[in-house]
Amino acid sequence: MNIGIDMMGGDFAPLEAVKGLQTYLSTSGSPAQLFCYGNEAQLTALLTEFSLTAPEIIIVHTPQEIDMHEHPTRAFKEKQQSSIAVGFHQLATGKIDAFLSAGNTGAMLVGALYSIKAINGVQRPAIATIVPKTNGENGILLDVGLNADCKPENLNQFAILGSLYAKDIFDIPHPKVGLLNVGEEEGKGNILAQATYQLLKDNNAINFVGNVEGRDVFSDKADVIVCEGFTGNVVLKMAESLYGTAVERNIKDDFMLRFNYENYGGTPVLGVAKPVVIGHGISSAIAFSNMIKLAEKMVVSDICGDIVESFKS
Amino acid sequence: MNIGIDMMGGDFAPLEAVKGLQTYLSTSGSPAQLFCYGNEAQLTALLTEFSLTAPEIIIVHTPQEIDMHEHPTRAFKEKQQSSIAVGFHQLATGKIDAFLSAGNTGAMLVGALYSIKAINGVQRPAIATIVPKTNGENGILLDVGLNADCKPENLNQFAILGSLYAKDIFDIPHPKVGLLNVGEEEGKGNILAQATYQLLKDNNAINFVGNVEGRDVFSDKADVIVCEGFTGNVVLKMAESLYGTAVERNIKDDFMLRFNYENYGGTPVLGVAKPVVIGHGISSAIAFSNMIKLAEKMVVSDICGDIVESFKS
Repeated sequence: MNIGIDMMGGDFAPLEAVKGLQTYLSTSGSPAQLFCYGNEAQLTALLTEFSLTAPEIIIVHTPQEIDMHEHPTRAFKEKQQSSIAVGFHQLATGKIDAFLSAGNTGAMLVGALYSIKAINGVQRPAIATIVPKTNGENGILLDVGLNADCKPENLNQFAILGSLYAKDIFDIPHPKVGLLNVGEEEGKGNILAQATYQLLKDNNAINFVGNVEGRDVFSDKADVIVCEGFTGNVVLKMAESLYGTAVERNIKDDFMLRFNYENYGGTPVLGVAKPVVIGHGISSAIAFSNMIKLAEKMVVSDICGDIVESFKS
Repeated sequence: MNIGIDMMGGDFAPLEAVKGLQTYLSTSGSPAQLFCYGNEAQLTALLTEFSLTAPEIIIVHTPQEIDMHEHPTRAFKEKQQSSIAVGFHQLATGKIDAFLSAGNTGAMLVGALYSIKAINGVQRPAIATIVPKTNGENGILLDVGLNADCKPENLNQFAILGSLYAKDIFDIPHPKVGLLNVGEEEGKGNILAQATYQLLKDNNAINFVGNVEGRDVFSDKADVIVCEGFTGNVVLKMAESLYGTAVERNIKDDFMLRFNYENYGGTPVLGVAKPVVIGHGISSAIAFSNMIKLAEKMVVSDICGDIVESFKS
């Protein structure tokens, strides 16, 4: 298996990306081949510094970089020799099986949507976040920001995408799907949620358990929670901020510490034809290592193939 | 000052309501007159049991009750002798200056919107929640559930209502107003947020500080955060659930414990002509006492008068 890594993306790249390779290689039983896109001189120097000489590391020199604050579409188009553009090119042509980056999120989405493209039948790919449950398990919430305005059918598709992800990545055989809403009863909610409820109820491809409220997000009421990307993004960022609060206030609680984004590594882009993982700008070595592991799991489980099957009309 | 209290509303009424009177009277320097709506026999027995004989307590016998699960509009219309209906009648006729209940939320909203009515110019009254800030201060978030679907002008009005509340109740002279959104920059967000941004920017009646993200909800970036009632309700319930999590997991942290709804007592209905406070169904004595104090503060500060002034065209 070949995993592609943008070594130049993220606030602490390439240093943390290189340390991430080390973490990954020292904790993985049978590591994948790691295609590392970035400035060869910089990477070679760091690899030497960390005495990293594993045969799995393959450096692909990319003379350009897309900065965190560049305009995504323009940068992606103009910097065809950047680590992100080359990575997506090699993903599209099958040289690598998955691609990940902690760099410019917009450029990553441009690559995912325009180089890799949505799977036939998927109207709107979505990004998902892992939600820690108080019972120790993990759930998934989507969309968390790719689609700020949604139609009911989009949320209905997110339910399928999220269910496949929960099955393939969390090994939950019949994931419970909940609709994020303002009340438990059918008929509650805004126009979007009311219309979505009916679609989810009639969707035989999922195990719909009804509405879930804000108080249920961390409970085991649902394994997959669907919402439009506006509310999902607010929930995601609120949850992430809890980790910061826990650290700042020295709250040593296992549940609170599970809000640490590093544990999850990155956010999968669901509904595009190949595995793409987008990391946090502040990604550390652990985050990079966990992103590689998530990408690996997405390849092994063939989640993209399962999505193709599900959306065949 | 005359404060009206629905003694029959809430899961633990009338017991916790009576204990709430006791808590209020023992902690208030110059208590208001308390008009207590409910079953006279039950209330008298409890007042005797707790040796509560304060001259401030005035029982108003109401032979009917609106149950927590009754259909709000129908129940309000059909049970004109219920504690909620009589309370609103006396609020409308000026017998009392404010009314509060931990009972059927829907019926309370029906009363607020149809017996008391929106202030001239206010398109949509809103309900607000207090947001604890990590710096120890309090902020306000609205709407948290009354208006699941909103137009930009509604959110613009919530900004004014919230600012007046922050001024009158929290004594913040120039409250910072933030728009809940998925990114910091102007132009971010769903269609509603994008259009609202422009209105808030042009609104001279408020101190608009721009977008705030999910991670900023508990920071001091804004004193007043506006959003539609769908996202607001999800945020509110997520925040409330954190208190439960803190208690369950024995997290003894001052900030986490401030998510306890009891501290705030209840949710004001902003934009209606008289002070109305709606409490949590699980309201305890402390919550009832704090609801009375909030109602008092709404009367003393004349927030309704200030809203009338602000919305004069």
